[in-house]
Amino acid sequence: MNIAILTIGDEVVSGKITNTNASHIAKVLEANQFIVSRHLSVRDLEVEIISGLDYLYQNADVVITTGGLGPTSDDLTKEVSAAYFNEEMILYPEELTKIENYFTSSGRVMPEINKKQAYFIPEAIVIRNDNGTAPGMIYEKKQRIIINLPGPPKELEPMLEETVIPYLKKKFLRKIFKKEYRLMGLGESDAETIIKPLFSKYPKIKISPYASVGIVDYLITTTEDNDELFIACCRDFEQYLADYIIGDWKLNIQDLIVSMLTEKGLKLTLAESCTGGMVTSSIVNVSGSSKVLTEAMVTYSNEAKVKHLGVKEETLSLHGAVSAEVAAEMAKGVKEVSGADIGLSITGIAGPTGGTEEKPVGLVYSGIYFNGDTYVFKNIYKGDRYKVRYRATLGILYELYKILKKTL
Amino acid sequence: MNIAILTIGDEVVSGKITNTNASHIAKVLEANQFIVSRHLSVRDLEVEIISGLDYLYQNADVVITTGGLGPTSDDLTKEVSAAYFNEEMILYPEELTKIENYFTSSGRVMPEINKKQAYFIPEAIVIRNDNGTAPGMIYEKKQRIIINLPGPPKELEPMLEETVIPYLKKKFLRKIFKKEYRLMGLGESDAETIIKPLFSKYPKIKISPYASVGIVDYLITTTEDNDELFIACCRDFEQYLADYIIGDWKLNIQDLIVSMLTEKGLKLTLAESCTGGMVTSSIVNVSGSSKVLTEAMVTYSNEAKVKHLGVKEETLSLHGAVSAEVAAEMAKGVKEVSGADIGLSITGIAGPTGGTEEKPVGLVYSGIYFNGDTYVFKNIYKGDRYKVRYRATLGILYELYKILKKTL
Repeated sequence: MNIAILTIGDEVVSGKITNTNASHIAKVLEANQFIVSRHLSVRDLEVEIISGLDYLYQNADVVITTGGLGPTSDDLTKEVSAAYFNEEMILYPEELTKIENYFTSSGRVMPEINKKQAYFIPEAIVIRNDNGTAPGMIYEKKQRIIINLPGPPKELEPMLEETVIPYLKKKFLRKIFKKEYRLMGLGESDAETIIKPLFSKYPKIKISPYASVGIVDYLITTTEDNDELFIACCRDFEQYLADYIIGDWKLNIQDLIVSMLTEKGLKLTLAESCTGGMVTSSIVNVSGSSKVLTEAMVTYSNEAKVKHLGVKEETLSLHGAVSAEVAAEMAKGVKEVSGADIGLSITGIAGPTGGTEEKPVGLVYSGIYFNGDTYVFKNIYKGDRYKVRYRATLGILYELYKILKKTL
Repeated sequence: MNIAILTIGDEVVSGKITNTNASHIAKVLEANQFIVSRHLSVRDLEVEIISGLDYLYQNADVVITTGGLGPTSDDLTKEVSAAYFNEEMILYPEELTKIENYFTSSGRVMPEINKKQAYFIPEAIVIRNDNGTAPGMIYEKKQRIIINLPGPPKELEPMLEETVIPYLKKKFLRKIFKKEYRLMGLGESDAETIIKPLFSKYPKIKISPYASVGIVDYLITTTEDNDELFIACCRDFEQYLADYIIGDWKLNIQDLIVSMLTEKGLKLTLAESCTGGMVTSSIVNVSGSSKVLTEAMVTYSNEAKVKHLGVKEETLSLHGAVSAEVAAEMAKGVKEVSGADIGLSITGIAGPTGGTEEKPVGLVYSGIYFNGDTYVFKNIYKGDRYKVRYRATLGILYELYKILKKTL
């Protein structure tokens, strides 16, 4: 059973707004074990909506539309859906009353054009809309189901959760196996190389990577009714990639770190150079982070490193600001200045200028000082200034996570 | 001439990521007066990509694909594109060298699986990719043009601007007038209300807003061959919105600020509470920012505000950490501690918890200390924790920009 999503609206097709409805609907459907096969976006034109429905029903049993349920003349979705199924719509008097009440409750009179929002195909299910004047519609004919939802996310989202999902669950009872993983510390190609044997070992199980900067997520799914094979595949996957799996893919490494530190009552502080506050900001973005992070510093110049962190002038002149030695002194220094339990440091060359043959753009040293031990990491990150800084941010968080996991 | 956009990738169809590529490509195309007719997203399956191409070429002359150019076995786009046109791909040795160099420049060896990224249809145009290992491809056969672009936005976006748009402009000659503006400090509805008279005054000129968090961009275009009218329209637009236009829409407020400060030889420092380094990080992201920012502090707790910035205990207990008075003392304090010329401060309630009736979630005070003057701004920002912090970041940068513009 496949579901397709049809978005209707000039503003989406012309790029004026990003189609967040399609990803939201898909995410909610997938979370409920339904499979989404396609998204299509077309303009507010009858002929394009019709040809879109034709195309989508080629492999989908259900098409969920979004947009085009408003009162104006370019809102065509329900009308075209009815025409597509050769049905005439009729006035549902009780829906008209609801729409009229929607207006009168805020002291207004319903404009005549809104009346069309109370028309539906006979025997269609009306999807109640508590946040606007456009009810949705569910209609089934010859094993094709259409579900019309409005465009505004605040209206669509509760209608999806409260009416559409319960309807689909009742209609299509199904079993599917699914497991998700988030990996850090390696790239997509490396991960694929490591798990290559699994593809031939489990040909009926789908193992799909989803890579973004610094992170590789994996989704393992099958509709084959074989528990044991699926469990074996996941066990193999976990064993092959044990060093890199941090959890399931909804997980942020920052959330993990904040909850580990909170649990142990540990405080963290940071001294950032080339990342310039990016690591600190990513931790502060976690609600409740004030329990584990009370202060941090951006020490971009050599003077600031000496003045605030007690980095030695000698270390700077001997090794340069971008060096393992300076990263180590920064981590220890910031920990001591702030009275936290753990000090993190980052110093590097984010580029695009400032690189040398010996110290190229992308070279980043990061340090962790914890329990009397100093750890230093050297990396050469690819990409523009932002990417180097972002990869360095994820890199140090991943190293801290590993140390915390081992130590705590 | 119509263009369709085909997004290929399980992660988009399953809703794991939002399809920002489609809206970005559409926006850039429309800005260049090309018409986008459809967006389609399909999974990483050969049969679905083929049927998608069939469907899109029904009314499009050009299909731009995004995604599926990676090295792994589920990256199928170029292979399927070649199959669709009945062509065999061949190895382009010079492209292989580039990919190998991409790896060796960061001290790695190219994994064997990346070799397939150097295969193209004979006579296809290769689209250079400076930010990754996946070059794109432009191929034309029987008046159908396919343009393959990779999925990561940082790779796709320059390839679109630098190669695809010039290619399309040359291929489909058209004359257009175009002007872009970036506005800050007001919302989309306010902007539309202010410029309402222009829509009837210039009916043949398209004036389109593109709103994102904290920013409204405008694009003014026409294909009418009337210079004077277009210039008059832009002049009116600039006059109506003079208080909010910061430049053209590729402009970052951070770049503007760094170049203004560099020119005047002024140094900036920051004390951030709820933004936790986000403002500093956004400035450090500008190449050359080390000339204007040498250090900054994240002072999240009250103790850190007292210890590092000299904020008075009395001020904190009398007015609370989130207050105009504390923002003022933070800005002045950090300026004096660091020896910079300008001190910026932010203190607020980012949420989701911690709000009260008097001080709700989203309340942010920010301060600027410059030339002996203290400026304090109060805002109540909407949205989740990240959005509140992001809006606060843009808000203080915009206020600083206005002060610098007035003063310098």
